[in-house]
Amino acid sequence: MAPSTPQVITCKAAVAWGAGEPLVMEEVEVSPPQPMEIRIKVVSTSLCRSDLSAWEFHAIFPRIFGHEASGIVESVGLGVTEFKEGDHVLTVFIGECMTCRQCTSGKSNICQVLGLERRGLMHSDQKTRFSVKGKPVYHYCAVSSFSEYTVIHSGCAVKISPHAPLEKICLLSCGVAAGLGAAWNVADVSKGSTVVIFGLGTVGLSVAQAAKLRGASRIIGVDNNPQKCENAKAFGVTEVVDPNSCEEPIAQVIKRITDGGADFSFECVGDTDMITTALQSCCDGWGLTVTLGVPKAKPEMSAHYGLLLTGRTLKGSLFGGWKPKSDLPSLVEKYVNKEIQIDDYITHNLPFDDINKAFNLMKEGKCLRCVIHMPR
Amino acid sequence: MAPSTPQVITCKAAVAWGAGEPLVMEEVEVSPPQPMEIRIKVVSTSLCRSDLSAWEFHAIFPRIFGHEASGIVESVGLGVTEFKEGDHVLTVFIGECMTCRQCTSGKSNICQVLGLERRGLMHSDQKTRFSVKGKPVYHYCAVSSFSEYTVIHSGCAVKISPHAPLEKICLLSCGVAAGLGAAWNVADVSKGSTVVIFGLGTVGLSVAQAAKLRGASRIIGVDNNPQKCENAKAFGVTEVVDPNSCEEPIAQVIKRITDGGADFSFECVGDTDMITTALQSCCDGWGLTVTLGVPKAKPEMSAHYGLLLTGRTLKGSLFGGWKPKSDLPSLVEKYVNKEIQIDDYITHNLPFDDINKAFNLMKEGKCLRCVIHMPR
Repeated sequence: MAPSTPQVITCKAAVAWGAGEPLVMEEVEVSPPQPMEIRIKVVSTSLCRSDLSAWEFHAIFPRIFGHEASGIVESVGLGVTEFKEGDHVLTVFIGECMTCRQCTSGKSNICQVLGLERRGLMHSDQKTRFSVKGKPVYHYCAVSSFSEYTVIHSGCAVKISPHAPLEKICLLSCGVAAGLGAAWNVADVSKGSTVVIFGLGTVGLSVAQAAKLRGASRIIGVDNNPQKCENAKAFGVTEVVDPNSCEEPIAQVIKRITDGGADFSFECVGDTDMITTALQSCCDGWGLTVTLGVPKAKPEMSAHYGLLLTGRTLKGSLFGGWKPKSDLPSLVEKYVNKEIQIDDYITHNLPFDDINKAFNLMKEGKCLRCVIHMPR
Repeated sequence: MAPSTPQVITCKAAVAWGAGEPLVMEEVEVSPPQPMEIRIKVVSTSLCRSDLSAWEFHAIFPRIFGHEASGIVESVGLGVTEFKEGDHVLTVFIGECMTCRQCTSGKSNICQVLGLERRGLMHSDQKTRFSVKGKPVYHYCAVSSFSEYTVIHSGCAVKISPHAPLEKICLLSCGVAAGLGAAWNVADVSKGSTVVIFGLGTVGLSVAQAAKLRGASRIIGVDNNPQKCENAKAFGVTEVVDPNSCEEPIAQVIKRITDGGADFSFECVGDTDMITTALQSCCDGWGLTVTLGVPKAKPEMSAHYGLLLTGRTLKGSLFGGWKPKSDLPSLVEKYVNKEIQIDDYITHNLPFDDINKAFNLMKEGKCLRCVIHMPR
């Protein structure tokens, strides 16, 4: 028997109507998945700093945020053979089409077809799949997981083992994976090396975990939030520096305590001036700066050419260099096998109705990850 | 019998008395080499763009320029065991002390002890070894080869085979080696790759030679000097673009003709805005920009963070990553064995007395390398 044609679903979603305004729980209509798309029932979704920044600074409203999520396939669109109803999935904010120059290169995760979607629309037809009382509601990163149901391109979903706990592994959908990959895939942190991490949120602390697993001998964390500094050691950070308590510029402090600069520095704040600082903080000759953060304001970074000429390298990392479909399932396995940990990044578990609490906690710097759980 | 103590030598040197003023042939006094220094009789020295820039823009005068040179050891200072009178050497503008953190790392040529000297003095005592009628004359890069005799630190000289032709291999003392190394050591250009080179002077064309030897399939040269574009194909450049004849911005042209950007781009002009252009001209995912040029004016480069986040890498290259003492002798061997060519970079041979002609030719963009030959 052919599967029945999916119908519009009406469900609850947390809609952002304006910049910085509390989300409003609305009845939304979710279209059936279009060709090569799937509709999923979101199970758990955590709030990431990028959601917060886009909510505060972007101009696309009304919008449904959320991009770090786990879910179960509810229905599939025409042409989808990779997924079927009931499959467990992670959503991803950059897809993997498996056919473009980037995907087939074997050395990139910057899919040209399903790249970062910034206009609040679906990749395939530049339309939305949500509406409230007939009014279209925009997507975020083509994921929009702050809704009981959402539609995503099948290339932006990764099938994972049904044995992995969906309420935890949503963190591998963005933040934790981004940090681990930046250290492993992009920087290739080496045993015995000195690492400095700017920003001790979930991403920065995932860099720390990865650096520790690689055997880095010093992992210096920099953050001006004393609470974050305090918690950081549990994730592998060996010493912390709060720039507010330093009399010298922070790059100078790092250079002094590392006898010339760190081997690796990671910008996990999302501040282009901090990229410069990170570059200044690593050493001549082989110092490598990896920038992961998405800047909220000034998009241009700058650096004195001398920093480069004396042997530094500056490299960007999007989603830690992981190719979602090719790499995420094994990262989930690593978690299941206790080779990596993610539980300690979850500082709060909240029911969907309390989603604004998560936004407030992150705004106030009082959480790592708040996981928002959908009603069963 | 102990060697006699070296005395002051009086010889001819081309002294720059002011920014952009023609050099004046003067009788200079050259001190004996101090401990760990050697005094050499310069044989051949070629004019490099950095000499020209420093002559035009720096404020340190009177000064003796020249840093790309070959010579023969005339005398050695106390403690020097590596060299003896009569040894053939190349001078280098960054030395190799063999003992600092950088030199012993095995992964850097940015010697902390004998690095780029910018104040016109000798590394060891911050003094000069030249004077004209009692007035001290500053050095350039601690080499100052536009003099019949010069004093250099023994760490800034490389002993080479007496069979290699000194009148040619002076080019390996800076420009040609810098270009070859940028492609081989720093970028590690791969077979079949697409390379774009900004600036088709000696350095850029040495990148081209190296890329060709690595089997790059497309080597695109960019220069707004039509004559340089015309000559470039002899060095491996497969196609040239003159920005002046393009209606689009050059980065857009490169992206269009390479279907998204080059695998590797090299900034060999010495212009921080060109670093940005080079970064824009390479592809998402794995595009690597290497910057070699020493900017004449604005020292700050800038780039949109998105260029990095989408997978580009920016890396600096000083002297092509070569460790002078460890690596230059084998590069000279490669030339002797005809595995690399340098002769074609020599567009002019001039006697020392005509040194101002070399400055004019380079200012007018009418030469690659002018080799200046000292009187025998």
